[in-house]
Amino acid sequence: MDINDTAVFDKLESNVRSYCRGNSAVFERAEGATLFDENGEAYLDFLAGAGSLNYGHNHPALRDQLVQYITDGGVTHSLDFHTAAKRGFLETFQEIILQPRQMNYVAQFTGPTGANAVEAALKLARKVTGRASVVAFTNGFHGVTLGALAVTGNQHHRGGAGVPLDNVQRMPFAGYLDADMDTLAYFEKALSDKSSGVDLPACVIVETVQGEGGLNVASGTWMRRLQKICRAHSILLVVDDIQAGCGRTGTFFSFEGMGVEPDMVTLSKSLSGYGLPLAVTLIRPELDCWLPGEHNGTFRGFNHAFVTAKTALDVFWKDEQFPTEIQEKSKFVQEFITRMCRDLSPLKLSAKGRGLMQGLSFDRPELASATAELARERNLVIETAGPNDEVLKFFPPLTITFDELAAGLEIVEDSLREVLDEKIISPIAAE
Amino acid sequence: MDINDTAVFDKLESNVRSYCRGNSAVFERAEGATLFDENGEAYLDFLAGAGSLNYGHNHPALRDQLVQYITDGGVTHSLDFHTAAKRGFLETFQEIILQPRQMNYVAQFTGPTGANAVEAALKLARKVTGRASVVAFTNGFHGVTLGALAVTGNQHHRGGAGVPLDNVQRMPFAGYLDADMDTLAYFEKALSDKSSGVDLPACVIVETVQGEGGLNVASGTWMRRLQKICRAHSILLVVDDIQAGCGRTGTFFSFEGMGVEPDMVTLSKSLSGYGLPLAVTLIRPELDCWLPGEHNGTFRGFNHAFVTAKTALDVFWKDEQFPTEIQEKSKFVQEFITRMCRDLSPLKLSAKGRGLMQGLSFDRPELASATAELARERNLVIETAGPNDEVLKFFPPLTITFDELAAGLEIVEDSLREVLDEKIISPIAAE
Amino acid sequence: MDINDTAVFDKLESNVRSYCRGNSAVFERAEGATLFDENGEAYLDFLAGAGSLNYGHNHPALRDQLVQYITDGGVTHSLDFHTAAKRGFLETFQEIILQPRQMNYVAQFTGPTGANAVEAALKLARKVTGRASVVAFTNGFHGVTLGALAVTGNQHHRGGAGVPLDNVQRMPFAGYLDADMDTLAYFEKALSDKSSGVDLPACVIVETVQGEGGLNVASGTWMRRLQKICRAHSILLVVDDIQAGCGRTGTFFSFEGMGVEPDMVTLSKSLSGYGLPLAVTLIRPELDCWLPGEHNGTFRGFNHAFVTAKTALDVFWKDEQFPTEIQEKSKFVQEFITRMCRDLSPLKLSAKGRGLMQGLSFDRPELASATAELARERNLVIETAGPNDEVLKFFPPLTITFDELAAGLEIVEDSLREVLDEKIISPIAAE
Amino acid sequence: MDINDTAVFDKLESNVRSYCRGNSAVFERAEGATLFDENGEAYLDFLAGAGSLNYGHNHPALRDQLVQYITDGGVTHSLDFHTAAKRGFLETFQEIILQPRQMNYVAQFTGPTGANAVEAALKLARKVTGRASVVAFTNGFHGVTLGALAVTGNQHHRGGAGVPLDNVQRMPFAGYLDADMDTLAYFEKALSDKSSGVDLPACVIVETVQGEGGLNVASGTWMRRLQKICRAHSILLVVDDIQAGCGRTGTFFSFEGMGVEPDMVTLSKSLSGYGLPLAVTLIRPELDCWLPGEHNGTFRGFNHAFVTAKTALDVFWKDEQFPTEIQEKSKFVQEFITRMCRDLSPLKLSAKGRGLMQGLSFDRPELASATAELARERNLVIETAGPNDEVLKFFPPLTITFDELAAGLEIVEDSLREVLDEKIISPIAAE
Repeated sequence: MDINDTAVFDKLESNVRSYCRGNSAVFERAEGATLFDENGEAYLDFLAGAGSLNYGHNHPALRDQLVQYITDGGVTHSLDFHTAAKRGFLETFQEIILQPRQMNYVAQFTGPTGANAVEAALKLARKVTGRASVVAFTNGFHGVTLGALAVTGNQHHRGGAGVPLDNVQRMPFAGYLDADMDTLAYFEKALSDKSSGVDLPACVIVETVQGEGGLNVASGTWMRRLQKICRAHSILLVVDDIQAGCGRTGTFFSFEGMGVEPDMVTLSKSLSGYGLPLAVTLIRPELDCWLPGEHNGTFRGFNHAFVTAKTALDVFWKDEQFPTEIQEKSKFVQEFITRMCRDLSPLKLSAKGRGLMQGLSFDRPELASATAELARERNLVIETAGPNDEVLKFFPPLTITFDELAAGLEIVEDSLREVLDEKIISPIAAE
Repeated sequence: MDINDTAVFDKLESNVRSYCRGNSAVFERAEGATLFDENGEAYLDFLAGAGSLNYGHNHPALRDQLVQYITDGGVTHSLDFHTAAKRGFLETFQEIILQPRQMNYVAQFTGPTGANAVEAALKLARKVTGRASVVAFTNGFHGVTLGALAVTGNQHHRGGAGVPLDNVQRMPFAGYLDADMDTLAYFEKALSDKSSGVDLPACVIVETVQGEGGLNVASGTWMRRLQKICRAHSILLVVDDIQAGCGRTGTFFSFEGMGVEPDMVTLSKSLSGYGLPLAVTLIRPELDCWLPGEHNGTFRGFNHAFVTAKTALDVFWKDEQFPTEIQEKSKFVQEFITRMCRDLSPLKLSAKGRGLMQGLSFDRPELASATAELARERNLVIETAGPNDEVLKFFPPLTITFDELAAGLEIVEDSLREVLDEKIISPIAAE
Repeated sequence: MDINDTAVFDKLESNVRSYCRGNSAVFERAEGATLFDENGEAYLDFLAGAGSLNYGHNHPALRDQLVQYITDGGVTHSLDFHTAAKRGFLETFQEIILQPRQMNYVAQFTGPTGANAVEAALKLARKVTGRASVVAFTNGFHGVTLGALAVTGNQHHRGGAGVPLDNVQRMPFAGYLDADMDTLAYFEKALSDKSSGVDLPACVIVETVQGEGGLNVASGTWMRRLQKICRAHSILLVVDDIQAGCGRTGTFFSFEGMGVEPDMVTLSKSLSGYGLPLAVTLIRPELDCWLPGEHNGTFRGFNHAFVTAKTALDVFWKDEQFPTEIQEKSKFVQEFITRMCRDLSPLKLSAKGRGLMQGLSFDRPELASATAELARERNLVIETAGPNDEVLKFFPPLTITFDELAAGLEIVEDSLREVLDEKIISPIAAE
Repeated sequence: MDINDTAVFDKLESNVRSYCRGNSAVFERAEGATLFDENGEAYLDFLAGAGSLNYGHNHPALRDQLVQYITDGGVTHSLDFHTAAKRGFLETFQEIILQPRQMNYVAQFTGPTGANAVEAALKLARKVTGRASVVAFTNGFHGVTLGALAVTGNQHHRGGAGVPLDNVQRMPFAGYLDADMDTLAYFEKALSDKSSGVDLPACVIVETVQGEGGLNVASGTWMRRLQKICRAHSILLVVDDIQAGCGRTGTFFSFEGMGVEPDMVTLSKSLSGYGLPLAVTLIRPELDCWLPGEHNGTFRGFNHAFVTAKTALDVFWKDEQFPTEIQEKSKFVQEFITRMCRDLSPLKLSAKGRGLMQGLSFDRPELASATAELARERNLVIETAGPNDEVLKFFPPLTITFDELAAGLEIVEDSLREVLDEKIISPIAAE
């Protein structure tokens, strides 16, 4: 591979840059599940913009609408003035997403980042309840601005705060200790105990699948029990669906079918469908006690994103075809993972996640990293997750073809086998 | 005017929406300094996306590049992988902006909001110095995520936090008490006094012109003195140039020619030139102690914005023509303001701001609001600023024509005179 | 009983007063385990100044020394100047307490309250480690000044803070969930998990028996495991022995024989032996990084207390007689509790605590309160503890005679039986 | 001087000890203004327990009452049960102090330290108002427990916190910038400005004379203006009279005659009159919204202190004799200071403080320290104050005789002159 010149990044960009350290290609074009670098070389995308490209890169239907809108002189930036594009999105979101699911929410367009949607949800929960503390879970990831960072578990990110991260109480996520243990028992008891020292929180914020935290999955049972505890103590339930939502787990919201009705839901990443910055906090109308402009932001009215977001809903979510496809692809990935776990049983691999946010967890984290590295050399864009980067994450666009999916997984398998071979580590003796 | 249907916003959007309450038009298209609603009716823009549209709406040169990029299948979303578009921006920014000004910064692309750039700057300042506290100034506005909100002065926004806003010490901005008083004397003494109770801060964050806070201006003398105090105590100087930068005051950075060299500078709003979400924190290379990915964000690699941002620099900042034009327009606005102050002297009007972020401050805030309201009825998009909304803010695109500028100011004058007439308030007896 | 005039308290003392609400007697004299009111009526003391009167009221040996010191003109108040009285205490404490137990600590005389000793310990732990967060346990009680209150679990007291109580992470105490569950598993896992969101704490602060929290007992096994976890992660172990120390559990320190070596120990309450305000934070010498006067306080050199504290050590701790007596009395109380639990088994009573800080826990908290109330009418000074005041606390002076102990327990039994009778609640149908 | 053995302190006491580093004598007895070491050597006390011994050491009238009480078997420790001794104090305080001054307060007996009284006042102010922030002044000193430390200005003490000290906003004290400047103008403007970033505080806490902060004096005019601002914004006014109260400035409360009526007043130090730990927070009855026991503390009912505190009021405050004497002694000290300033004018000395808390401020702090050191060698117990220890503090018992006062000041003058001589620093060329 002819590595293009990247000196300018080294010289002019901050040390904070990270993904480019694992893959130094200079990308130029992209389509579907494929990225192309400046030499025209193709890369298969198993990362999908960390979940921001569920419909693939530059989906033609969305692109056409976007280009049309721009060439027609459609208003681009509108603060929170009314625009036709925003109305289009709101109506379509109501009609295609909320109404059929019998959900009743108003939409707050926050600054166009997931962290901003989280900040808005936490602020509103505190304002509504008059309580300062919120509950977050082990291994949760919700962003790195100060309010969102306080609920994020990752030490690497927390270390950048420079101040104590306050007003958050941490509780163990589903399955944190061992699969059978009831991790909510502590939360429930502490809330009922007048001298537990656990203050009554404004809300809990939870991901149904912890994307960055290692693809840990909360079951429907756990989520219902969490909701029941919250309701018993008038605690708001906020589902952060920024990574797991927009179809990633097989349904539009990750919590569909679980029998939970969150008080607030945050969405971002794939919401625009095209990789354009957009974020929304969905709020039960009774809780919407914001004063005008109390939480604001310059880019909360980015109309390009409204246009593509509406189109994405029209194209993908009008019937059951797309969800069905996701589920089939999920099954395909699951079978691969199951086979890996079985074939390489001495490695003590385990399956993580659900839908198209699954992964392979390694007992020895260095094997996950080594495999990812070799896969990248084979032009697969892939990342690890989890506290020790021990989970190899399969995060393709939902629109990926079965052939591409198979090709990607084959690269993973080849890379893993090469790691085992190169290290002269027989699977048997791997431990 | 035929008001278009806006029921959908009332029903589906959060109460937090604000600008649309003052102007209920549903905007559809936009060009230069003009917005068009769904009926094709035109509105003159004296707000410019709160400073995000310095080059006007949908500038054709930028639009052409953007459409070309999209139709060519250019990568849209790239996290912080290398892309050709990002490199293009970095090189051009270096060549056209930094080098000629002999500035030496690395760029951190934060989440694409100004608040996020501020959060990154504050986090880095705390990390570098190991100090928790930062100093912010009265009437400063820096965003509403928790870290940025803590440095923001506005009570309305602070009230939405739901938690105490910690680790910030407030100091009086230039001219806060009276024009002659040395507002930095308190800061300086407190830093040298071992029992002042003012903790040594990591940084100060300051706007040279406080856009939301009432168009208050810091002089070069004040800024240099602030920088001197900072250096004497190893405090970092962060200039928040999100609103005042990108040409708004007549130069690319608002602090050019002042003899100050900030340790960090935040830019956003008009950085993309097209209203696309983009933000950057410029960092003196010696301070760039970020670990890879320590501050991250999904949309920190939004290539559409890189494309238009680069083009904006190419089109506007290669020579002195554009700054010269801004300065001429600024003078034009200033003359208008001077005339108003003189002609309506009983109203005790005063001039605020500099460059194309000037305004007319009213001794009686209700006159500012009433004038803005009448101007809006005449299809001028205009807002007020300041703690009591007492400043009528003239914030047109920098590319506005002199005719348009004159037309807008005429609407302002007509509206103000109508306010005075309608209220049967003779200017003489206005008090 | 002739109730003395108490109007002056109602009129001139704050509503914050509490114990006097349960017993309105005006006490005048006291001796051993007996208080006398203004009418000369006697009250048996099962509270012992909440653990401050382990050697009874006005013990003659201590009184004699104190009176002698005062009449000799001994210096009373000395800040932290050297005094002969302080030296006497330091030497005796070293010789009688520390040396025989092979303990190596320096003593910090903090302000003369337990809360102040806790504040000093937490500050020093944070200073030594450079970490802001500390870990405290459910149902812990450590005082109500802001730093101590943050580690205290009681909602009633926390509610008085008026600010969020920060920089504390709460963990479940021994036996919190169910007797068999390993409550330290969560703490241990969270510390090893890089994205748990549980920040590495400066220290843990723990009581071996939670006096106010309901007489919950940590076993030696649990304490050793806690110490092991702390050492593995360089977390300091602070034992708050303010209530459980000074012999209350049968040994001078409550953790003797457990195989733990705390990094710091806080003592107060019965330290002076005479009810005089005194507090000390014991610090492993290697951790003693205080700067001179960095933590100070006007009354840290109260020599009357040094005199009685020294005398108490001389009188009670030179040999095994006193501890042996405590253990016998503890057994006596335990037998009473066991009999109650058995005889009144339908009430689902349970035994709490150890040493002479035992109690009877009621499934129905109102029975505990009602029993205490009737016992008070019989001139027994007694209190309840626990989150719901469900534990009737037997907290006599350690010097109480067996006859007095028997008499007090008889009052308790009579009162309880009267409660059951009066309420026409047959023990059988008590549930 | 035969230095007694002090090795035990070096070995067994924490490094935090401080006063004993300046004077290593081991004190044994004390009487009036004189301390005696183990060798019977006498020391003249110009420190008075940092203001805790206003009536001198071991005043015979107080001692007699105390010994009588103890030998009579008076109850020593009583939590907050009613006792005859407490009633005696409450009645006497009401009759001799509050009533004649037409003051209406209830008394909260907090833990027996000044810091605890401050903690209680701040908690109550926050609870009553529902606001988290409080305002404190530059150079204020209020204690070192976490809540009190946050309002304390001293960097040395603040540095021991180990956590950020939150929920406090600092304002410049009277005369902070220059004598003529109106330091309250900033506070007043910021409170009226909706975007000042200065949050509406629960209370201000202020000393009328800043004892530790350098004997800075607030005038009656300044205090009245502060009270007016507080009332206009419903902010509570808390006067911390722990050091300046109990007669130190010539009247019982330091603010008498100023026309201010604080909402709360904290007293401690000399309140017991004998150096016994005692503290009280006086509260306007309308604000007394404490729940029973919400703020508590083991030693809040220390009856020895009630006994001596009552006696001190009886002995000293029944008529005008004692205040008159204080004022005469104050004048004597003032004349000395005036003479020093005049005679040694090249040293740029200045007078600080009022009443018997006056001092001599040195332009060159090292001269203050050197003088204090030499004075100590001459058996004068004396300390410095101020941010740079630049103020030599004259803080004798209020009961000191004129002869003793003259003797002490002579030692000061001799020491100062020796400093100037030894250093061969001619007063003329001192700068």
